[in-house]
Amino acid sequence: MLQSKLFPRTQKEAPKDEVSANARLLIRAGFIDKLMAGVYTYLPLGFRVLKKIENIIREEMEKAGGVEILMPSLQPKENWEKTGRWETYDSLFKFVSYYSKTELALGPTHEEIISPLAGKFNLSYKNLPFYLFQIQNKFRDEKRAKSGIMRGREFIMKDLYSFHAGENDLDDYYEKMKACYKNIFDKAGIGEKTYLTFASGGSFSKYSHEFQTITDAGEDIIYLCEKCGVAINSEIFQPATLTSDVNVAGCPECGSKNLVEKKAIEVGNIFKLKTKYSEPFGLKFTDENGEEKDVIMGCYGIGLGRLLGTIAEINHDDKGIIWPESVAPFAVHLLVLGGLTAKCGEIYENLQKRGIEVLYDDREDASPGEKFADADLIGIPYRAVVSEKTLAQGKVEIKNRKTGEIKLVNEKELLKAVTSSDD
Amino acid sequence: MLQSKLFPRTQKEAPKDEVSANARLLIRAGFIDKLMAGVYTYLPLGFRVLKKIENIIREEMEKAGGVEILMPSLQPKENWEKTGRWETYDSLFKFVSYYSKTELALGPTHEEIISPLAGKFNLSYKNLPFYLFQIQNKFRDEKRAKSGIMRGREFIMKDLYSFHAGENDLDDYYEKMKACYKNIFDKAGIGEKTYLTFASGGSFSKYSHEFQTITDAGEDIIYLCEKCGVAINSEIFQPATLTSDVNVAGCPECGSKNLVEKKAIEVGNIFKLKTKYSEPFGLKFTDENGEEKDVIMGCYGIGLGRLLGTIAEINHDDKGIIWPESVAPFAVHLLVLGGLTAKCGEIYENLQKRGIEVLYDDREDASPGEKFADADLIGIPYRAVVSEKTLAQGKVEIKNRKTGEIKLVNEKELLKAVTSSDD
Repeated sequence: MLQSKLFPRTQKEAPKDEVSANARLLIRAGFIDKLMAGVYTYLPLGFRVLKKIENIIREEMEKAGGVEILMPSLQPKENWEKTGRWETYDSLFKFVSYYSKTELALGPTHEEIISPLAGKFNLSYKNLPFYLFQIQNKFRDEKRAKSGIMRGREFIMKDLYSFHAGENDLDDYYEKMKACYKNIFDKAGIGEKTYLTFASGGSFSKYSHEFQTITDAGEDIIYLCEKCGVAINSEIFQPATLTSDVNVAGCPECGSKNLVEKKAIEVGNIFKLKTKYSEPFGLKFTDENGEEKDVIMGCYGIGLGRLLGTIAEINHDDKGIIWPESVAPFAVHLLVLGGLTAKCGEIYENLQKRGIEVLYDDREDASPGEKFADADLIGIPYRAVVSEKTLAQGKVEIKNRKTGEIKLVNEKELLKAVTSSDD
Repeated sequence: MLQSKLFPRTQKEAPKDEVSANARLLIRAGFIDKLMAGVYTYLPLGFRVLKKIENIIREEMEKAGGVEILMPSLQPKENWEKTGRWETYDSLFKFVSYYSKTELALGPTHEEIISPLAGKFNLSYKNLPFYLFQIQNKFRDEKRAKSGIMRGREFIMKDLYSFHAGENDLDDYYEKMKACYKNIFDKAGIGEKTYLTFASGGSFSKYSHEFQTITDAGEDIIYLCEKCGVAINSEIFQPATLTSDVNVAGCPECGSKNLVEKKAIEVGNIFKLKTKYSEPFGLKFTDENGEEKDVIMGCYGIGLGRLLGTIAEINHDDKGIIWPESVAPFAVHLLVLGGLTAKCGEIYENLQKRGIEVLYDDREDASPGEKFADADLIGIPYRAVVSEKTLAQGKVEIKNRKTGEIKLVNEKELLKAVTSSDD
């Protein structure tokens, strides 16, 4: 893509009300635009990253047997009354249709939709298990929308719902999902800092699990077990106040009491719903003996915008973002200096022909300094510079955004460098 | 995909309140589920068709220079007040955030968002033209939500916005978009019945254009010019009542008065917005002489759900849907009869290995009659049957859903038949 045609250009300053590094950098570099508190537009660069994250998640969900659907955002009051959540769900946007006079909610989650949907089709044990997921917009009337795209009033989520004949089957799938989530966070470049975290299971499960990524920009406190590597949400473990029943006295995995406090951001959660939603909606199946039983459910969420923000938060320096190759908007940022557009255009075409995604800074009115600063800010993994100096040697200067390593290479070596991932 | 694992199964009856053929068939065949009036879930089969339509549209938009973004559904009242549409836009869902007390709208369109967004970045003539599009959920508080997914309260749209330095450039791009839209409707299998239709341009353009597909299930009346093949919306042409200024006395393209009345459904529209939205938001650019001028805009919409419904409406018979190959959920519907699952499983694997999308009816508890009826209802272009009779000849029976033609072929010929499109 030609940078001269890229909307919008980068900005020197971030809005003053944005405090987190990721939001400030994402806005300055032109990945997102803030429409109002907690509501953002994904601009061309941000949209590309979002799609890459979406595809990483989709691939893992499909590997785990997930089949994609798309449920609506508009949801009828009746469904939320059936689960008692119309009154109790804290951040539900509610309103009335002017024409139909019906009361509606904007979906913050979809248990109230998918459970009665599954219940429409006389299920037998032969139909179970099945797994449905969607990647879709969610809405929450947040008390304090903050941290840029980390906690939005409108945000994109992947939510998968699993349907089982028994708890053992749910348990097996739940473990499979843990592995899927680990793969996703590994692929997205935050695996090393992301921990499986024990959290409250509510009144119907002992625990649920979160995936928490360690960062100063996090809103949660977690306790990391130095012995076995799992973590515990402060919701169920607070060393000083072991008063509640759900509190645990040590690591729920290994019993160790060597727990270290860390700030983290929740990037995913998985939950054994069991019959919490199948019961109120009469979601049953017929077992081998012809008996009707409640379907056992699980749900598994990942916020895509939050993941995008987290990736930027833990992969940046003071000059800008450092995208992992797997989610970078482009593989190469090609910079032409000093009007050598003919030769550089040729390199651009050659890279594109080979299927390499290139952002080509062809701007005639930008100085080399501006181009270098923009490249650092936008954070594409490889910067390739074509100047009189490099061309005199028949070469291109290539810089690795992450390591800072600079090399002079010929076109063939350039191709090799940008296609062999070292992430 | 294994049909035994496909959610949900087909249904013998459609809901009584669904009157259009497309909605009845799409629901019975398990492509969509109705949550409430005008609000639907895309089930696995429907989601696959939706994605194919999305990709056809995306490809054409990118060919025309469009760059993809994603704008939010939540929109602030201020933006809609600036254009005067907070009070006048008939079907705007409006509500108040409980926490922030701000008044919000659910976006039925995005001129109120993209115009001020573009205006944030001191544009110069060098930045123009540019074209931004999104494929995103829209909301309209419809007086009468009806015709299944044809007129929803929540629906997916592609909307592209173009930004130009002058009207000539807008005119050129507008013609380009006409060609793009023609390609889209051709590829989606409704090209022959879809007509470029003159419609009202409002107070600021002589005409806008719609793309109208002829069908009894349509809600609009159009007048088709038998001489030149364009059409005119009844909004601007009513033979009996030539009273208004905007009415035209004959075909606006060739002047002919041979106009034939037809019922049609609008599947797309394109509009020269000119400065209607750039003015209220101060969206300007600096021209070659350093002077500030209003940016000239155009907008171009296609409703994906409506297109999907239209495709099903004009491609069906009394047994079910007849999907064009380009948007079919699968290329082949493989049916095994009489427990020959080993051989059939092998064929299934072989087809899949070659990248062919197969729905494999592996159900053990369904009769041949049920399998045949489901195949006709779901409407995948090729049905391939493996039975004792066909296997005795080392063959598979292949049936073309559209032509009804049946052939006995070997595996190699099967592969050839389903990959060489005759659409």
